[in-house]
Amino acid sequence: MAGEFELIDLIKARCATARADVRVGIGDDGAVLRMPAGHDLVASTDTLIGGVHFPVSTEPEDIGWKALAVNLSDLAAMGATPAWAMLALTLPSADRDFVERFADGFAALAAQHHVALIGGDTTSGALAMTVSVLGFVTPGRALLRSGARAGDLVFVTGTIGDAAAGLRFPFEGLFGTSASREACDALRARLDRPVPRVAAGVVLRGAASACIDVSDGLLADLGHVAKESGVGIEVSGPSLPASPALLQAFDAPTRLALQASGGDDYELAFTLPPSREAAVLRDLAKTGCGATRIGRVVEGAGVRLLDAGGNEVALPRRGWEHFA
Amino acid sequence: MAGEFELIDLIKARCATARADVRVGIGDDGAVLRMPAGHDLVASTDTLIGGVHFPVSTEPEDIGWKALAVNLSDLAAMGATPAWAMLALTLPSADRDFVERFADGFAALAAQHHVALIGGDTTSGALAMTVSVLGFVTPGRALLRSGARAGDLVFVTGTIGDAAAGLRFPFEGLFGTSASREACDALRARLDRPVPRVAAGVVLRGAASACIDVSDGLLADLGHVAKESGVGIEVSGPSLPASPALLQAFDAPTRLALQASGGDDYELAFTLPPSREAAVLRDLAKTGCGATRIGRVVEGAGVRLLDAGGNEVALPRRGWEHFA
Repeated sequence: MAGEFELIDLIKARCATARADVRVGIGDDGAVLRMPAGHDLVASTDTLIGGVHFPVSTEPEDIGWKALAVNLSDLAAMGATPAWAMLALTLPSADRDFVERFADGFAALAAQHHVALIGGDTTSGALAMTVSVLGFVTPGRALLRSGARAGDLVFVTGTIGDAAAGLRFPFEGLFGTSASREACDALRARLDRPVPRVAAGVVLRGAASACIDVSDGLLADLGHVAKESGVGIEVSGPSLPASPALLQAFDAPTRLALQASGGDDYELAFTLPPSREAAVLRDLAKTGCGATRIGRVVEGAGVRLLDAGGNEVALPRRGWEHFA
Repeated sequence: MAGEFELIDLIKARCATARADVRVGIGDDGAVLRMPAGHDLVASTDTLIGGVHFPVSTEPEDIGWKALAVNLSDLAAMGATPAWAMLALTLPSADRDFVERFADGFAALAAQHHVALIGGDTTSGALAMTVSVLGFVTPGRALLRSGARAGDLVFVTGTIGDAAAGLRFPFEGLFGTSASREACDALRARLDRPVPRVAAGVVLRGAASACIDVSDGLLADLGHVAKESGVGIEVSGPSLPASPALLQAFDAPTRLALQASGGDDYELAFTLPPSREAAVLRDLAKTGCGATRIGRVVEGAGVRLLDAGGNEVALPRRGWEHFA
């Protein structure tokens, strides 16, 4: 067991990404940060609650990674370049081993994106953490939810449905699926170690007409784009990109439900005028993160999921909502 | 009962401070903010847990106020001018009445300081909230904990000990004190509605050699200044400023313990070279927030509490520490 200030020192030591723009970092009442000239600031915050946003059995390293990843995903969805993060960590007890492993996971992702941990808070209570992230964007080029126009095409990066599939294994095990152990591990890794699409967001900055990250479920998240843009969106079920592991593990109807309604993938869903499709897909491929065309923007409102024949598919659940 | 997105709309509607520098506010994956030229950014975050940082019986309006106040206090201690806040709110249930009242308290303080709520998150779990605040400071003029030098004088704004006294009443009532109902209410109000010393922090910017806010307890917080500055600090017990309510409610030994070790006052403790004392106290008085000289910075290490005769006073507890 350790005291509060020991825990802070421990986190600080393990999250030691150095940035010249951090004038005062962890250890004062606040951090002092130098903004680069000619940029706007982008800010976002997300909370993870133990047993709600991750299974309680999740490894501490994975929790630390995910707490930062879901926030960097929000910056990616804005087309922002991440810079700084704050961590408010609530723990049932001052468990030094947990904190070390949590900080290692957080730091591993922070280092990849050159993000400096600049402050935070540690408190005692049920396991939960709120991360706040700050990044930069060229003025006027942030990716918003509100810019989709009828006639635009709809895309999603990577593959979707894996994280929701991974969530089923702790409870269902391999029972009822034809998946190999490797496939299950791959799906579970998508849940535990989401990869924020930061480089893709930078490519889309100033090119995509609208963008959102897939956190609550594809249809639910596209619903926000439709609402904020004042348009309708049609999604082609058979076009949704699936990983080899997902293809192996589930039959087509289950797969479709996981892809359309499962959350936690942290891919980017975005819209483009057709004239930009070729150039953007080429630039995305260069970042190692491809994208798939999955639908189109239409006049009207709401999101409709269509089958191969163009008929609407009804799903029991369209996405995740707290308190629902 | 309400859904997650209803709650967000509700909070947004009640926290509607408009700022031209908010290019994109609540409702996208992140906020887009325009920094003023020639300023550094100051960032801080603090979590309040129900039953830990406030009694569970606290009125929702007071919880909302306090959640922002403790964060603005951190900006004040840096000498920063507040601008933007994010709110991550965790609730056991989607209680519309609670959220409305919480948002009203938050908004009342936000309006006083022209702080815009730019984003947040709502999740389900045990009652807790993490607020992150952002503000501005002239480069090189932020107030740090590390600048105190032997020979400097030590001050505290306002009066201290009231919040810790207020914390005792829900449990002890008026029993054992000679205080009037009015005095008890005044003490409780200091606990529930702390006033962040933002204007005082701006006065101290570039004048004080070190500054910290009194959140964990005066001696504990001055201990951070002593450690970061590499100095010792002597505090004169009889010099500690007490409110009329505190004087009425408690005898001298209890008062001293509350003032020296009780936290949650959110006054600023700061150090000054003696040559600046007169000018700074005059400027502080103009803001309506006086300060009292309570001690001096010496060679050495640690914080010593002295009685009228200059002898060290031992206290059972020097401040609040989680996990202690």
